Amino acid sequence: MSVATLHDELIVFDGLIISKWSEEVFDAMRSGGLTGANCTCSVWENFRDTMLNIAEWNRAFAKYPDRLLKARTADDIRRAKTENKTAILLGFQNTTAFEDRLEFIELFKEQGVGIVQMTYNTQNLVGSGCYESRDSGLSDFGHDVVAEMNRVGMLCDLSHVGPQTSRDVILASKKPVAYSHCLPSGLKQHPRNKSDEQLRFIAEHGGFVGVTMFPPFLRRGNDSTVDDYVEAIDYIINIVGEDSTGFGTDFTMGYGTPFFEYLNRDKGDGRQLTEFWKVDFPDGLKSISDYPNLTAAMQRAGWTDSKIRKIMGENWLGLLDQVL
Amino acid sequence: MSVATLHDELIVFDGLIISKWSEEVFDAMRSGGLTGANCTCSVWENFRDTMLNIAEWNRAFAKYPDRLLKARTADDIRRAKTENKTAILLGFQNTTAFEDRLEFIELFKEQGVGIVQMTYNTQNLVGSGCYESRDSGLSDFGHDVVAEMNRVGMLCDLSHVGPQTSRDVILASKKPVAYSHCLPSGLKQHPRNKSDEQLRFIAEHGGFVGVTMFPPFLRRGNDSTVDDYVEAIDYIINIVGEDSTGFGTDFTMGYGTPFFEYLNRDKGDGRQLTEFWKVDFPDGLKSISDYPNLTAAMQRAGWTDSKIRKIMGENWLGLLDQVL
Repeated sequence: MSVATLHDELIVFDGLIISKWSEEVFDAMRSGGLTGANCTCSVWENFRDTMLNIAEWNRAFAKYPDRLLKARTADDIRRAKTENKTAILLGFQNTTAFEDRLEFIELFKEQGVGIVQMTYNTQNLVGSGCYESRDSGLSDFGHDVVAEMNRVGMLCDLSHVGPQTSRDVILASKKPVAYSHCLPSGLKQHPRNKSDEQLRFIAEHGGFVGVTMFPPFLRRGNDSTVDDYVEAIDYIINIVGEDSTGFGTDFTMGYGTPFFEYLNRDKGDGRQLTEFWKVDFPDGLKSISDYPNLTAAMQRAGWTDSKIRKIMGENWLGLLDQVL
Repeated sequence: MSVATLHDELIVFDGLIISKWSEEVFDAMRSGGLTGANCTCSVWENFRDTMLNIAEWNRAFAKYPDRLLKARTADDIRRAKTENKTAILLGFQNTTAFEDRLEFIELFKEQGVGIVQMTYNTQNLVGSGCYESRDSGLSDFGHDVVAEMNRVGMLCDLSHVGPQTSRDVILASKKPVAYSHCLPSGLKQHPRNKSDEQLRFIAEHGGFVGVTMFPPFLRRGNDSTVDDYVEAIDYIINIVGEDSTGFGTDFTMGYGTPFFEYLNRDKGDGRQLTEFWKVDFPDGLKSISDYPNLTAAMQRAGWTDSKIRKIMGENWLGLLDQVL
């Protein structure tokens, strides 16, 4: 089957996009054939500011009804495919927005929030992040948060979470959990990358792995191409299996230095956590409109159509069917 | 010297009072001869609600200028003695009010907040509490908080803090730190009580210990008298020394069950952390007006006037001279 025909048929689900939402981004989603994505609407923001971010999304849904729909279930994403729209699954990269109130979790679920990362790089009320000096694991409050996320149907994301906290969440959660956007430390050692053992552990417990293409964590850094990305996905498939792997690019569009500084600093304006990366996305995947090049690279790597369908989105939908 | 004369001369500083502030409480402070106290104005409250609590204090300072003054320094407490007033040193029992912003620390210092406990019973952004299942110690953000409290001149209080986090704060702080209201586990085993080793450790590092009389942590529980309290103070003096010990009653006046439930639950309305205690304050120390009975019990125990002066308040003022 030609790449164009195959890509046209695919359900394409991106496990993580964090961008400055605009008409330009929504147009790129459509021209890239993106069926749905986990779109970050909170990182360091508190309850109120996160609700305001969601209100801004609501304005976008009202303004672009021909291009966007709000996804609350995996079926909403399937519906987006038939209606030629992109389904937006709202997600957080931190539990800061939950503040100190378990009740806020259901309030956010009601707004369509379906994926929440437990910590972002450093310690919060729930547990520790991958850049924190020490990680004693999921706090007692964190156990309450996991139970409530299970109850309302919200996916626990562990991408930026510390190793011990990740392990505790995998064991505590009664529903599958995910690394929505990570890379293997088998290809490059990095605090953000996951060891073979960690990948095996989440898979053995029914979990899911979305593979990112963020260049600082890729083997060849800024020299990487879309083919290096497919190589990394294959590395993960070999450990996690073809049915529990997806992708999560971590695409950013429209943001400049102040936003990356906000992400990089503890709580948005505290300690700087890493060097500031000069990020050059892989050749072939420079923009949200470039998903067809990912499908093409998978074909070049000799993947079957069935494997491409699963990794490009069907596996994500199967996971979301179980969790949401 | 007669008890009455001695008590009249004393600087009486209570390292912890948490009460429903009212004219009745302020009158009890005056009739008890209280020169100054660390008065809790935040436990689980966030930035905004804590500022509102402080605003309520400001109304009290305006309404009772004959009885109260706001203390920013140890000298303000000495001035209260000469003016026959009670100096209110505003304090927090948690860092929740700092939220995720180091800048808030200076804003609170400006309002007169001089003593802040790093955690209240459970994990927060700074570290862990004495009832948390695991305590990995002071977080990276917590190190930033200690440095900022040192810089602006705010005492780090460790009474309800977990053992590892307490140790880390003692080592991280460039100024003396305190257990403002604790009892020794040498007299009764309890998660809130401190071992001889912990008491020795804080003393060896220039720290301070205020002794509480909270019955559930006293050897004889609700059967305790003011003499049992003096026994516990002497136990601590034997480890920490006569110059680094004070008292911090943990007096409550005017609050009913809903408030104690608020204190007991994680973050004010989460998990219940301990059984609900039926608290009966020690015979002789039923009210904030009863401080003269504490002085009398110290005399009964054969303490010298000099020792009584130190423990009743002079030591606290020496500590505050160094920190504020």
